[in-house]
Amino acid sequence: MTASTGPSHGSRGGRRSAASVPDLVARAREGDARAVARLISLVEDESPLLREVMTALAPFTGHAQIVGITGSPGVGKSTSTNALVAELRGAGRRVGVLAVDPSSPFSGGALLGDRVRMQDHATDRDVYIRSMASRGHLGGLAWTTPQALRVLDAAGCDVVLIETVGVGQSEVEIAGLADTTLVLMAPGMGDGIQAAKAGILEIGDVYVVNKADRDGVDQVRRELRSMLAMGERRDGRWKPPIVTTVAVEARGLDEVVAEIHRHRAWLVESGELDVRRARRARDEIEAIAMTALRARWGDLHGHASLDGLAASVADGTSDPYSAADELVAAISA
Amino acid sequence: MTASTGPSHGSRGGRRSAASVPDLVARAREGDARAVARLISLVEDESPLLREVMTALAPFTGHAQIVGITGSPGVGKSTSTNALVAELRGAGRRVGVLAVDPSSPFSGGALLGDRVRMQDHATDRDVYIRSMASRGHLGGLAWTTPQALRVLDAAGCDVVLIETVGVGQSEVEIAGLADTTLVLMAPGMGDGIQAAKAGILEIGDVYVVNKADRDGVDQVRRELRSMLAMGERRDGRWKPPIVTTVAVEARGLDEVVAEIHRHRAWLVESGELDVRRARRARDEIEAIAMTALRARWGDLHGHASLDGLAASVADGTSDPYSAADELVAAISA
Repeated sequence: MTASTGPSHGSRGGRRSAASVPDLVARAREGDARAVARLISLVEDESPLLREVMTALAPFTGHAQIVGITGSPGVGKSTSTNALVAELRGAGRRVGVLAVDPSSPFSGGALLGDRVRMQDHATDRDVYIRSMASRGHLGGLAWTTPQALRVLDAAGCDVVLIETVGVGQSEVEIAGLADTTLVLMAPGMGDGIQAAKAGILEIGDVYVVNKADRDGVDQVRRELRSMLAMGERRDGRWKPPIVTTVAVEARGLDEVVAEIHRHRAWLVESGELDVRRARRARDEIEAIAMTALRARWGDLHGHASLDGLAASVADGTSDPYSAADELVAAISA
Repeated sequence: MTASTGPSHGSRGGRRSAASVPDLVARAREGDARAVARLISLVEDESPLLREVMTALAPFTGHAQIVGITGSPGVGKSTSTNALVAELRGAGRRVGVLAVDPSSPFSGGALLGDRVRMQDHATDRDVYIRSMASRGHLGGLAWTTPQALRVLDAAGCDVVLIETVGVGQSEVEIAGLADTTLVLMAPGMGDGIQAAKAGILEIGDVYVVNKADRDGVDQVRRELRSMLAMGERRDGRWKPPIVTTVAVEARGLDEVVAEIHRHRAWLVESGELDVRRARRARDEIEAIAMTALRARWGDLHGHASLDGLAASVADGTSDPYSAADELVAAISA
């Protein structure tokens, strides 16, 4: 089994073979990486088969712990993800990695060279690695990532890591998708007070100060600790730990894994796991329903079409509320 | 007239006075900053009066050039915004500033100390400054920012600057709202290749390399130029210029303003302004329509309620597509 790195490309997914959905799902459940890759391609290609795929996968989902990894550019997310995969594999866990690129014409090209490091794990039967290009249509991440997670979950992964490449708009979305969110920081990046502004202090379940062999680690820890003490967390009970690592030397990752386990235990005990998963399912249902409604809006003709309404708002002859009323009335009719 | 800094707080907006909407709009049109502030508070508070406000404002919108300012933490966004306001005021333009904080429990507190610098302009009659806390409900930025822009636009601003505090998820949303997006970078922040990953290379209309008195400016410019040359831009015609500044000494801002004007002229000439504004109106209409639909989903009872459907997806007894079908069927009935 070889892991699938590089993002899939549009035309590849839907047509290549005639394998039936039940067949693909059965093979994915048995650990066939090519079947897993095909199923994720169906997600990325928004295949009409997706509906059938998701129905077939549903009974097998809910096992994997979804771990989001985020942080500013340069803190060492890829290196940390790589080291974390090694650590989890050492503990015998089956691991999936979804590397999510913000929508960019550059993604998939030479700039993703550091993805290659992931090939450390490319020959490991129990690691699935996948770069996903969020292509921006249909809500990007909101649409494809949860479904790709379902595939990896149903394929028997114990842990699925979602790594964002860069900070970008995906940070908060990732936190919404994950059971456990790791926020990475590093000394000397002006991360302290800026981090507070970027809102990442409310999304982290575990804070990782990477590059701990550099000057300034203590200061980052101190600032982080005092800022975490100031903030009211949405869940109000879990106290996010701060772990230090040197990911490039694989130092401290055992502690990160221990905190991930501890957080999982807390999620189950506190009932928060069910809360987060129900919220995630709600978002996913909404995203799909919204897409169905958008398609209807596209089908409307004349003045009530979304484009027609937008033109009248843009030129000041209508306002967005009146236009929204017309739109809602038109689809409900 | 004094500018309103600090974010407004929930209870403040809707109740304080009994001024009628037509009255508030008329006063805002005459340059009464308190009326402008009240109208923006109505937006932030999601007042039931908003619908009436937007109808009253519609005929007066479409004049202002909306300029988004984004970039990684530490590149000097606040300082640059401040210097840009001074430069635009020097050229006799009426200026609005919306400083948008990512949803964070910390926003509005001491960490926003650097907002205070904006008070350089607090006694200027022709500058409106407003910090908006994106409170996260109803889609945050997507919901409130376009409406706050409408208020500032109708109040006669020539230019409205939208500054994101931190990078965060708001970057791409800002680009969606703006006519012209400035992307700020600075030497020595590892911004080069990382920037490409973060996807900001496709959203900038003008690139500003700030802190140009530091080592490494030439390298940042060079990397930026070669990366811009590699990329395919969505509009394919405008070549984004690269400007260098030392915002803290107000150096180079005249050139930034010149490029903003030049971009505006291009937008008008090429027809791209209409395209962007229609797209923005479409997003705004959709956001409002979606909110109306969500409210209906909340009113559904029994198995077809969104919460009920989410629970069945979370426990694997249903899948998101089937659930979305039920939801759409229920609201269309």
